[in-house]
Amino acid sequence: MLTIVLIGYVAGLLTTFSLVPEIYRTWRIKEARDLSYYWLASLGVGVVLWIAYGIFISSMPVIAANSASIILVMLQALLTVRYNKRKLKR
Amino acid sequence: MLTIVLIGYVAGLLTTFSLVPEIYRTWRIKEARDLSYYWLASLGVGVVLWIAYGIFISSMPVIAANSASIILVMLQALLTVRYNKRKLKR
Repeated sequence: MLTIVLIGYVAGLLTTFSLVPEIYRTWRIKEARDLSYYWLASLGVGVVLWIAYGIFISSMPVIAANSASIILVMLQALLTVRYNKRKLKR
Repeated sequence: MLTIVLIGYVAGLLTTFSLVPEIYRTWRIKEARDLSYYWLASLGVGVVLWIAYGIFISSMPVIAANSASIILVMLQALLTVRYNKRKLKR
């Protein structure tokens, strides 16, 4: 059972990590892409539902991975709003 | 219990869908980004581990969402290899 939970945590670490390059890219080029709002909304709601599902089935890896993901999604949202505003000001 | 499983499926649908814009973008501009290989490797291994974890805990939403994701990740990998090759030929 410990191995199974560990597999879940490693899985969560890797898939959550996959959000980092997009955030890094937005921060680096100081510009958010056109698709970002739909993408963020879909991902954000999905991640919140995963947390709810994880709580219901008592799966700590699902809860932990998606709690980390929601922080990254919010960070991406902040950067997107910030750089889209800057774009509009030009 | 049916509602819980349904929440899991909707969660999976939304987070899996979040992979589509990147694939669409690669296909549209016929160019894969520099980070793509690390990103794909991390995401691919993560998704496979989620499937393994889903089987162990008998969670159909986790298995289904990540099975759909692995197909999308493979599609992204194919496009990445294809357009990186084309880039090298120039």
